[in-house]
Amino acid sequence: MAEVVQKSQEKIPEQDFQENIIFLQPIIGYGVARVLDSSHQNFTKGDLIWGLINWEEYSLIKDTTSLIKIQHTNVPLSYYTGILGMPGMTAYVGFYEICSPKKGDTVFVSAASGAVGQLVGQFAKLFGCYVVGSAGSKEKVDLLKNKFGFDEAFNYKEEQDLDAALKRYFPNGIDIYFENVGGKMLEEVLRNMRLHGRIAVCGMISQYNLDQSEGTRNLFLLVARSIRMEGFLVFHHYHKYPKFLEMVLPLIHEGKIAYVEDTVEGLENAPAALIGLYKGTNVGKQVVTIAHE
Amino acid sequence: MAEVVQKSQEKIPEQDFQENIIFLQPIIGYGVARVLDSSHQNFTKGDLIWGLINWEEYSLIKDTTSLIKIQHTNVPLSYYTGILGMPGMTAYVGFYEICSPKKGDTVFVSAASGAVGQLVGQFAKLFGCYVVGSAGSKEKVDLLKNKFGFDEAFNYKEEQDLDAALKRYFPNGIDIYFENVGGKMLEEVLRNMRLHGRIAVCGMISQYNLDQSEGTRNLFLLVARSIRMEGFLVFHHYHKYPKFLEMVLPLIHEGKIAYVEDTVEGLENAPAALIGLYKGTNVGKQVVTIAHE
Repeated sequence: MAEVVQKSQEKIPEQDFQENIIFLQPIIGYGVARVLDSSHQNFTKGDLIWGLINWEEYSLIKDTTSLIKIQHTNVPLSYYTGILGMPGMTAYVGFYEICSPKKGDTVFVSAASGAVGQLVGQFAKLFGCYVVGSAGSKEKVDLLKNKFGFDEAFNYKEEQDLDAALKRYFPNGIDIYFENVGGKMLEEVLRNMRLHGRIAVCGMISQYNLDQSEGTRNLFLLVARSIRMEGFLVFHHYHKYPKFLEMVLPLIHEGKIAYVEDTVEGLENAPAALIGLYKGTNVGKQVVTIAHE
Repeated sequence: MAEVVQKSQEKIPEQDFQENIIFLQPIIGYGVARVLDSSHQNFTKGDLIWGLINWEEYSLIKDTTSLIKIQHTNVPLSYYTGILGMPGMTAYVGFYEICSPKKGDTVFVSAASGAVGQLVGQFAKLFGCYVVGSAGSKEKVDLLKNKFGFDEAFNYKEEQDLDAALKRYFPNGIDIYFENVGGKMLEEVLRNMRLHGRIAVCGMISQYNLDQSEGTRNLFLLVARSIRMEGFLVFHHYHKYPKFLEMVLPLIHEGKIAYVEDTVEGLENAPAALIGLYKGTNVGKQVVTIAHE
């Protein structure tokens, strides 16, 4: 791969290359891979790993900091891109640590059918909370209610008035909001938060592709309701990964937690799958498989 | 007072009174008063108290929940409306508990010359932080630098570009922001927060008199920088008041903490003083004295 980049760079006049930062590299994303050869002491031929790898069939990985060796193979390997990987850890850290949950808390999860949201909702249910999720299609809403065991779910695209929708499901307000979308949704959730509410800010997907982020109103309610709103990055918490596996693997094997993937085959279908994420066409964790045996 | 309200109500047709919520009551605010008579077991004639009282020369106080008996009178009594009262407790709780300060942290305080801001800045300096404050006049900025010992201070009204101003004083970013104003300031502060930054949301004075609150951009940075933003209400923390006095009284007596009040005399000047708060004409804690001996 390094060679390919080098060749492409040669075609670009030096000055253009300096002035315009051009990345001639594959897209990076979380994936599962098998080690074909290694000079790194932690990894040997045949090992399975998950972590940040390139979108390509064969990769030369020089930065191994994100790589974790897979120890448990009695689950689908693709789970290490989701429930057993970064999204799983995100749900775990976000819910148990950032949300400071108490039994009986009312929990709202946006983008609830995504890789992180579906797990947060199930963790919250197992913990003894009342859980409502929002998603962008009937299919996703059905999944939340029938597969993931959310108490209630609604299609935000069909709600004229988000405030009214939230009041319908949370007549006494929201204790915990797991924030994945940002923008208008956050604004309306703030109006419905209870005293001492907690908002774990995991992502704001509605804001990522805007030239300028939208403004969120109602932030003064943070004071009036003594709300804590906290962002977090999962990679600050990877030392807790073994503890996380210890909790989540039995839940998977005992069928106490459900997990849904949306799989496309072949690297050539990966770009469309990525674009689909922002349109919300995927149902569950979006996975791209590139099989090589 | 109760009689006056009754009489006024009688003049309003019952239906109008029901449909339009009309408060025919004096304004309520934090004040210091002497007990002239009492049938409450905790208060006796001659006691000095501070807490929520009416803007009037003589009051009948039925709800005593906010009242605290003054034990230390070797300080100006007006201090119990500020440094030794609700604003002092707000600065104490907000800085020491909500901001989770560490020695060497960089701290930014908006509305820094106000009753709360001036104390937060001084607590932060005593704690070993680097402290910068913003205020709305040259006089206030001078006070911050020369009287309250802030490392730096600036007049936000004279800055064309708040982001540039913050970058000038915080080239490596802000660890702690003590938020008193909201709106545009918060938006720009978010851009300058460091990883694991903390924002104590004490108030958002720029938003109080708007028909609809402004939107704040850049909230996605809460995720990218793992920022905690937390609102609080001081009355949830009043059980810590004795501990607070134990810390702050020696600081006052040893001259280690400065405190500035802006005093007007006479109840008739109180409305103009209140309006002045929102215009920023007061310098330091706004106090209205009504002397009776």
